[in-house]
Amino acid sequence: MKATGIIVEYNPFHNGHLLHLREARKQTDADVIIAVMSGSFLQRGEPALLPKWERAQMAIDAGVDLVVELPFHFATQQADIFANGAVDILDALGVQTLFFGSENGDADAFTQTAKLLTEQSIPFKAAMGRFLEDKANSYAVAWNLAIREIAPNLALDLAQPNNILGFHYTRAIIEQRKRIEIATMTRQSAGYHDESPAHHSIASATAIRRMLLANDWQSVKQYVPETTLAILHKYRETYSFVSWDDFWPLLRYQLMTAPTSQLQAIRGVSEGIENRLQQATQLATNFDEFLGAVTTKRYSSARIKRVSLQILAQQAKTKAPTQNYIRLLGMSSAGQRYLSQVKKVATLPIVSTASKTDPALIQKDVLATKLYSLSPSLGDQLLRDYHTSPYRKKL
Amino acid sequence: MKATGIIVEYNPFHNGHLLHLREARKQTDADVIIAVMSGSFLQRGEPALLPKWERAQMAIDAGVDLVVELPFHFATQQADIFANGAVDILDALGVQTLFFGSENGDADAFTQTAKLLTEQSIPFKAAMGRFLEDKANSYAVAWNLAIREIAPNLALDLAQPNNILGFHYTRAIIEQRKRIEIATMTRQSAGYHDESPAHHSIASATAIRRMLLANDWQSVKQYVPETTLAILHKYRETYSFVSWDDFWPLLRYQLMTAPTSQLQAIRGVSEGIENRLQQATQLATNFDEFLGAVTTKRYSSARIKRVSLQILAQQAKTKAPTQNYIRLLGMSSAGQRYLSQVKKVATLPIVSTASKTDPALIQKDVLATKLYSLSPSLGDQLLRDYHTSPYRKKL
Repeated sequence: MKATGIIVEYNPFHNGHLLHLREARKQTDADVIIAVMSGSFLQRGEPALLPKWERAQMAIDAGVDLVVELPFHFATQQADIFANGAVDILDALGVQTLFFGSENGDADAFTQTAKLLTEQSIPFKAAMGRFLEDKANSYAVAWNLAIREIAPNLALDLAQPNNILGFHYTRAIIEQRKRIEIATMTRQSAGYHDESPAHHSIASATAIRRMLLANDWQSVKQYVPETTLAILHKYRETYSFVSWDDFWPLLRYQLMTAPTSQLQAIRGVSEGIENRLQQATQLATNFDEFLGAVTTKRYSSARIKRVSLQILAQQAKTKAPTQNYIRLLGMSSAGQRYLSQVKKVATLPIVSTASKTDPALIQKDVLATKLYSLSPSLGDQLLRDYHTSPYRKKL
Repeated sequence: MKATGIIVEYNPFHNGHLLHLREARKQTDADVIIAVMSGSFLQRGEPALLPKWERAQMAIDAGVDLVVELPFHFATQQADIFANGAVDILDALGVQTLFFGSENGDADAFTQTAKLLTEQSIPFKAAMGRFLEDKANSYAVAWNLAIREIAPNLALDLAQPNNILGFHYTRAIIEQRKRIEIATMTRQSAGYHDESPAHHSIASATAIRRMLLANDWQSVKQYVPETTLAILHKYRETYSFVSWDDFWPLLRYQLMTAPTSQLQAIRGVSEGIENRLQQATQLATNFDEFLGAVTTKRYSSARIKRVSLQILAQQAKTKAPTQNYIRLLGMSSAGQRYLSQVKKVATLPIVSTASKTDPALIQKDVLATKLYSLSPSLGDQLLRDYHTSPYRKKL
């Protein structure tokens, strides 16, 4: 069976994702599509709108064959770490191709750029360091300046968000020496950051979340498949949608009481950012005010959200490599067949039920899900992660 | 001017306190009564029902001349540390006599007992250690068994709660070699633990808190002076009363996310209690359930509440002695006169306004008050401690 991998957040699954999924299957002639999906918390340092179990079901019901979780350690970090974790999992599951959407749309441009920057990694790091010395430069700005210095005539525009992700996926494949091909499609309208719908059936996840939080189901309907709509409706009968606001009282408390030395030991805390965060806590009355008070040119809001999340989850800096693993969240019947075939040769441990797994392996993700379940939007789901089996699509 | 000291929590100030106050003045022939009062959190590991500022006002309006705060470090610990902090402050303020209520009522019994146990401190500690080896013994039980072994014929019954406190006050005076006399009155009815009113005008603070939380003002009226009632009424127009329930979401979050090594570094955490606390967090849905699940013969509920509070406030174990100080909370005109007289000779720093004070000195108490102000019962009082001046009674 031929497997194609995709890397997703599905927050929530919408028509743009459906298009991407169908193209992935068609363009790569795949028997199964495997999605590596972030769990409770996402790459931009935000909690998911609704739990991973519902989001996995959305994916399976819409045609994905296998949904596995990208562990918290990778899912909530900058693009290079995120990509490394996801590529590692897809390779362990034996995918032949990684398919992604991009503004560029030409796979060769990604391969050439990734190869070039992998070969030039030493001068690139030196240039990064130099550009970061200017305190007005954010990490992203320094990164772009360094790339332009090393490779002034790149075919790939690395200021575009999906190009950046695709580049990191490709580089992860090259650096990890994986035998995975890449394929890409040009992304249709609605970029990640667009907040208003641009197309008659496709809107960004950001815009759709906005509609959902405003209870504007009439609009939502237009931009998500019926399978997603049904799951959202059912979820909303009992729970509310989760946002950073739900965790603001806990973050505020943590920043207020944690000793400075403890904050300094947290992953992503550097350059005295802990002082800015602590000071902002005194005056902010909600998460947006807090974010507004600490975001600067140097510290993008994504970076602040990521570091806030690590503080919230009390994740210390660590030098030891994190053991990756394959956590099954959902599967179609084709996905089940593929899994039973690949199981014997998979190069990472496969986790089906948390309660039957070595606690040390899944510790961080159990903590992340417990933390997520402290959201007042969710009611009592504290131990759900232990007892939930992967979603299986009924035929 | 002759000053008499008392050590109080006033949670809230009631008729029994008024009686005690009047007796203190009468029996010791005092010109001024100085109360050392716990701030936001109390000796049994609980948050105060309402802020220290309102409680200080209750005291001054009812006739206390000077109210100063017992710093968090001392106020939230077992009786010996609590007593040491309070006696230190009263001595620095030049009191001649320490007055307290007790079941025994005879000052000599306290002095003799405290002297005896101070002289016998080495065999006493050895006996304590021996009795604590039996894991069924709580600290309090071992303490009592050790005392009975060292001094089988004591006149003082050290199983009585007010006798224990009086004993610790007296021992603190002896050990710190302070020149403070002690005087005591027999406590009228209503012990600390009584939850139902026993006397037509005196009820325990516990019983009164219960009435207040049940909004039973008709009963409350009977047991508190009018001055207290007015302050409680005014407070309740805007705020609610504070309890551990207010902090349960934060404690639960902290126990769920803090690494075990971090919990082990917290003051009062020993013997693997952190594991019991973390496990109980998974199933408890409120603070009482949590407390019920972790309280045992060995770990009294007061000890669990104290250690929970230290975890909530993220207070690490520390070997360095804590600098004591005199934080002014309220004063009568006589109190103001006394203060201006004693100011020049006071042996501890005096703090009138937090915003004008060395932050390092008051750091722990600022943190405690901020933490306290995170209670949803209080609305936005986060920076109140910085801007509030001591209450002065208008003539």
